[in-house]
Amino acid sequence: MSTPEHLTGNKDAIRQFIDKYDVFLFDCDGVLWSGDHLFPGSVPTLEMLRKKNKRIVFVTNNSTKSREEYRKKLESMGIPATVEEVFGSSYSAAIYISRILPQTHPEIKKRNKVFVIGEAGIETELASEGIEYLGGTDPKYRRDVTPEDYKLLAKGDPSVLDPDVGVVLVGLDFHFNYLKLCYAYHYIKRGALFLATNLDSTLPSAGALFPGAGSVVAPLVKMLGCPEPMAFGKPNQAMMDAIEGKFHFDREKACMVGDRTNTDIRFGREGKLGGTLGVLTGVATKEEFLEGEVRPHYYVDKLGDLLEGA
Amino acid sequence: MSTPEHLTGNKDAIRQFIDKYDVFLFDCDGVLWSGDHLFPGSVPTLEMLRKKNKRIVFVTNNSTKSREEYRKKLESMGIPATVEEVFGSSYSAAIYISRILPQTHPEIKKRNKVFVIGEAGIETELASEGIEYLGGTDPKYRRDVTPEDYKLLAKGDPSVLDPDVGVVLVGLDFHFNYLKLCYAYHYIKRGALFLATNLDSTLPSAGALFPGAGSVVAPLVKMLGCPEPMAFGKPNQAMMDAIEGKFHFDREKACMVGDRTNTDIRFGREGKLGGTLGVLTGVATKEEFLEGEVRPHYYVDKLGDLLEGA
Repeated sequence: MSTPEHLTGNKDAIRQFIDKYDVFLFDCDGVLWSGDHLFPGSVPTLEMLRKKNKRIVFVTNNSTKSREEYRKKLESMGIPATVEEVFGSSYSAAIYISRILPQTHPEIKKRNKVFVIGEAGIETELASEGIEYLGGTDPKYRRDVTPEDYKLLAKGDPSVLDPDVGVVLVGLDFHFNYLKLCYAYHYIKRGALFLATNLDSTLPSAGALFPGAGSVVAPLVKMLGCPEPMAFGKPNQAMMDAIEGKFHFDREKACMVGDRTNTDIRFGREGKLGGTLGVLTGVATKEEFLEGEVRPHYYVDKLGDLLEGA
Repeated sequence: MSTPEHLTGNKDAIRQFIDKYDVFLFDCDGVLWSGDHLFPGSVPTLEMLRKKNKRIVFVTNNSTKSREEYRKKLESMGIPATVEEVFGSSYSAAIYISRILPQTHPEIKKRNKVFVIGEAGIETELASEGIEYLGGTDPKYRRDVTPEDYKLLAKGDPSVLDPDVGVVLVGLDFHFNYLKLCYAYHYIKRGALFLATNLDSTLPSAGALFPGAGSVVAPLVKMLGCPEPMAFGKPNQAMMDAIEGKFHFDREKACMVGDRTNTDIRFGREGKLGGTLGVLTGVATKEEFLEGEVRPHYYVDKLGDLLEGA
């Protein structure tokens, strides 16, 4: 793999870089902001790109927020955006379930409900695609397991296990518990397809790491003795396909911007985008960009350095 | 591996088998009973063995019950037993922490508290060995995570993370949640030793499977990107060492009785016991006993068949 080009401080190289692409896909945390702290160059850089008629897409693995909620978050950070510009793993999963699954898994058509482990963001996106769901934030599932649960689940009683459930979709759930795992496991054992919004093992917050969607998925993987399920967050290409399906762009003329090599940069590389830009304001170090297994085409010290070429 | 000898219907072989061993280690579910159903031959077989002065040990991976609670369960099933005869994964873990760890991990000595994910059985056994613990069934940890939790955990605030915690012990917890995982993860990241009572992925109940201790352990393994932790249930030999440490028997003259090849029979085989006896009243099939990777020395259709040799 070739050595990435360092753009910071090189006006001509920056101009050529910007001219080369029509579409910029942005990871957010570690690129535009860190935790609660917006990087000073983020807003002007996005403005500069918009002025040059570049399409901006914010790509997030966060499954707990719907696109509208994420747009509000962007707005609250001072970044104007439209819902159309936001692409999240829950939306990507919803699109897959409503538009792709009926073709690839015709048997699922008859069992068209989704059992959700996750927060409201998943529910909103499933609803936006007209998909019926159960589980999720329903308080009915936020309780201790009882001996009666064991009996009813064990015999697959339709009063607890809805026979129309054809998919189990798991994302980050701050309220996940033993009972929800029991339900998800029994639905999958009865033939439901096992999907995950994303498989990030951790969630960065307040400068430390907390359990991510991949950790909520892990107990089911262990119980089922199966590989990790299909997932829709970066670097999974199901997400890239969904983004392309919506915006119909030329991959050669698109660039993924991110701070993590194993998710963001890999996402762009495996999606055969024309470019990937690494930023040093997040997880990856310069060494990782220069010598790692997955390297970006270009890198900058911080996103705002692109303003030098404006 | 040689073909196991079928004892059912062969009086002489049964007599020779019984005479050969002084100690019989029993798995319970699938051997003595199944769910709520006690097998008719179980009590007379145990009586027959006791009359012949055989030592009986009930070996259970169940971490949610203390030895005394498990003795009560045996009694409620109609099986008389003493606390001394019961060996559980929580007790085994407690012995390891109190007696072995101070030698193998002298640095833990100064941080002598255990953060528990699990039920009362673990707490009772830790207390029986004089070990201080936190977490477990404390209602303080049975709640939703808050933004304040993230901040305090991220900075390792001693008001939330007790600096004396040197071990995180995880077992089956019907009340496990996001908050407990956050605590466990941050304790381990700050240097606490990660241990599990057992790693069974599932818990059989009402004729079906539900999440086991291994599934409660799985999110932490995923977050930490580490191998599965040291554990004390069958087939882990830490449990065999603890049993031998207590009863001082000759392994050549001990026999493990069980229905599962990958836990019970493996436990006896790897522990170099003189014998292993498979029973066909649980998980394993005759084919598994005869052709599997791990095979018992002997097998019977059901435990009560041993009465033929009485």
